Amino acid sequence: MRYARILIIITAALLFASIAASMEEGSGTGDGPSYTIDFLWIALILIIAKLSSLVEKWGQPAVLGELIVGVILGNLTMLGINALAPIGTDPIILFLSELGVIILLFQIGLESNIEEMKKVGVPSMLVAIVGVIVPFVLGTVIIGPWLLPGLSQNAYLFLGATLTATSVGITARVFKDLGKLHTKEARIVLGAAVIDDVFGLVILAVVSAIVTAGSVSALSVGIITLKALVFLIGSIMIGQKIASPIGKWLSEVHTGVGMKFALAASFCFIFAYFAQIIGLAPIVGAFAAGLIMKPVHFTYFIEPEVVTDIKEHIKNHHDQQAVDRVIQKHSHKHVEDLIAPLGLLFVPIFFVLTGFTVNLATLFDVKILLIALGITIAAVIGKVVAGYAVKGVDRKIVGWGMVPRGEVGLIFATIGKGLGVVSDQVYSVIVIVVILTTLMTPPILSFLIKRMKTEAPA
Amino acid sequence: MRYARILIIITAALLFASIAASMEEGSGTGDGPSYTIDFLWIALILIIAKLSSLVEKWGQPAVLGELIVGVILGNLTMLGINALAPIGTDPIILFLSELGVIILLFQIGLESNIEEMKKVGVPSMLVAIVGVIVPFVLGTVIIGPWLLPGLSQNAYLFLGATLTATSVGITARVFKDLGKLHTKEARIVLGAAVIDDVFGLVILAVVSAIVTAGSVSALSVGIITLKALVFLIGSIMIGQKIASPIGKWLSEVHTGVGMKFALAASFCFIFAYFAQIIGLAPIVGAFAAGLIMKPVHFTYFIEPEVVTDIKEHIKNHHDQQAVDRVIQKHSHKHVEDLIAPLGLLFVPIFFVLTGFTVNLATLFDVKILLIALGITIAAVIGKVVAGYAVKGVDRKIVGWGMVPRGEVGLIFATIGKGLGVVSDQVYSVIVIVVILTTLMTPPILSFLIKRMKTEAPA
Repeated sequence: MRYARILIIITAALLFASIAASMEEGSGTGDGPSYTIDFLWIALILIIAKLSSLVEKWGQPAVLGELIVGVILGNLTMLGINALAPIGTDPIILFLSELGVIILLFQIGLESNIEEMKKVGVPSMLVAIVGVIVPFVLGTVIIGPWLLPGLSQNAYLFLGATLTATSVGITARVFKDLGKLHTKEARIVLGAAVIDDVFGLVILAVVSAIVTAGSVSALSVGIITLKALVFLIGSIMIGQKIASPIGKWLSEVHTGVGMKFALAASFCFIFAYFAQIIGLAPIVGAFAAGLIMKPVHFTYFIEPEVVTDIKEHIKNHHDQQAVDRVIQKHSHKHVEDLIAPLGLLFVPIFFVLTGFTVNLATLFDVKILLIALGITIAAVIGKVVAGYAVKGVDRKIVGWGMVPRGEVGLIFATIGKGLGVVSDQVYSVIVIVVILTTLMTPPILSFLIKRMKTEAPA
Repeated sequence: MRYARILIIITAALLFASIAASMEEGSGTGDGPSYTIDFLWIALILIIAKLSSLVEKWGQPAVLGELIVGVILGNLTMLGINALAPIGTDPIILFLSELGVIILLFQIGLESNIEEMKKVGVPSMLVAIVGVIVPFVLGTVIIGPWLLPGLSQNAYLFLGATLTATSVGITARVFKDLGKLHTKEARIVLGAAVIDDVFGLVILAVVSAIVTAGSVSALSVGIITLKALVFLIGSIMIGQKIASPIGKWLSEVHTGVGMKFALAASFCFIFAYFAQIIGLAPIVGAFAAGLIMKPVHFTYFIEPEVVTDIKEHIKNHHDQQAVDRVIQKHSHKHVEDLIAPLGLLFVPIFFVLTGFTVNLATLFDVKILLIALGITIAAVIGKVVAGYAVKGVDRKIVGWGMVPRGEVGLIFATIGKGLGVVSDQVYSVIVIVVILTTLMTPPILSFLIKRMKTEAPA
């Protein structure tokens, strides 16, 4: 009964959006280029994404629901419904989607802590190294030549390179959805994913150079690696140093919540920008920015509304200590609270769009599907064994946390296709591997995390 | 000393952005079309906009600071600094700017109340009518032919039509900046601006029809008016009816803060979308959406974090009534709190961009400037007398609240230019009128509002 009603709402929302999208836009006082249709898309994605959180009632993380409704929306064309197809290529929606994943990683950085991350530096590094080497070797010399015989050596190189990728967004969301971001497993995976992005950058440069020039110099590999490391370490060190004085200076202009928000958001966006400039994923920059934003940088800012409110209501009890505790707690939380609504708006757009770009038609070619299944198994094994590189944690969770290839794998494959090394067939295979590793991770990871939870008290 | 430091920060931020913007984007793992430069622009706008709130120390509303830094950033090309010029035409930034003003009007709608708005229906209507007729007559038959002799009758018609426009964004921000949204004056101006938008739609259609077809039928005028009224009244009535059951249904899926946010944001975006479809400004739809979002629609949602927090800290005092009061207060405020960070991010983009598009070079032609000054005086008089259409309030505040022409005036002029009626000379004049009415309103309105405040207790 309850679910029937929700199905009716979903159908109504889709019908409504389809009709609305097919209406021609009025002229009237429209100012220049009209982005109005994007407001409809955003509203539709928001509502459908929230309805999909129904999956939580069946013990699944909300992100799985968003991915699935994305897949459904993106494949409605198969049923002849084309009204929503423009969503997938709308530049505004693509931007908001990127904004979404950047804000997600910034939030996750905010909830993390640089000292805690340093503690898992060595295990993260081990997981990243094993999680790069094993899938690369499997793809390049074992599973690749076996399942896709007769290709050039360069094609296997690219396949192997693709399998080294890790898309941290999915895993981070699962940990966040289940409230497990503070576990050691989550921190190891986050650290390993950041390191994996540096490796990925180097691997992509090396493989591309081998394909185009036939070889690669140690010097250029060294330069790429150095640039990435200097950015990551340098930005974190400099950021930590300058965040506090900048916060102090800005608080002299204005002590309101707006300035605090502007400071935090600017750090996030500037770090994301420079990460991209250096060749890393922008989300790595956003995560780093979140890591260095400590509450201490905001002590110069007053939180007028919350504080006044709480003070007013507690002061009659003459318990100054209680008042202070509440204020303390709220001012520490506040940056995260200010960023949270941005996450509510934009993060679902990223995951729905990730699902949206999944082309179910690729699954219909049985031969390609079977090859892809084989390579998916290799892709999973390659990352799951990486979890066994560390001790003292639930290794399966760490390993599965590295499994999703997401958009990072697709970028590798697309570059390979552009270089003429990755054939249409191999590209389709990679797309399926990306789909499967991305969609299978949330339920499996969620199962493993819950099992850990129930085992703990035993 | 303090201001010197801020000037250093502003200069550093600009230098930094200029250098960053002139850097070429790295390739690396960049995914498809790169929007990364937009993150830099957003960060720059945010920081510069917040620094500009320095104007508050001199008693000016923050919006004036945002407009001024926008003017400065947009005219740096005069000093040979071209690195920031792409901001003005960047489609992403233009979208975020539109998103900003939509969120602003949604926030203002949320803070307003439909019953309170109904109470000022008659005065708002009077202000709107006088504020349309007087500037139209002044522009078409008095000031236009006097200062710009020898033009076609149609050119004067368009000039008059342009002067009827009201851009509510500036005024609404001033009232909001000064915490005066709940005054009767603010409500009258908001109501009049919405009605003015309906009039503007009709006037634009009529004037365009006269220019292109030589005449206009009463029927088509009636249809346009009817469509706009049916949308406005219909959407508010239907929205009020369906918001509560939809809220209840959605809360069955999920009672978290995310669903509440999705519900509110979707209403905002869908209303903005349909307003634009009907030919009204999207901000009129967003304002209407805010008006109908009453706390009662959210009573099905739990506010887990805030409530738990406060409960925990007060329960030891055994004052259940105090606990309930705090919870009540917080749950009523929560939708506004959820939307506020979106406003912090996007609203400054709108105002900085509004300033950005001001081309100071137009002010250098002395003859055009003088004509524009004359027409600006007429434009101001035409709206200020509209304030005298009502009694029992500070009429000057109401009148001045209607003065800014903003982007609405520019749209009229641009359409007239497209129809070949508005010459380059007249267009330049209109641009200056828009600039002056937009920039002069915040300080004058702020002065009037503060005077009202100090007079009240006397």
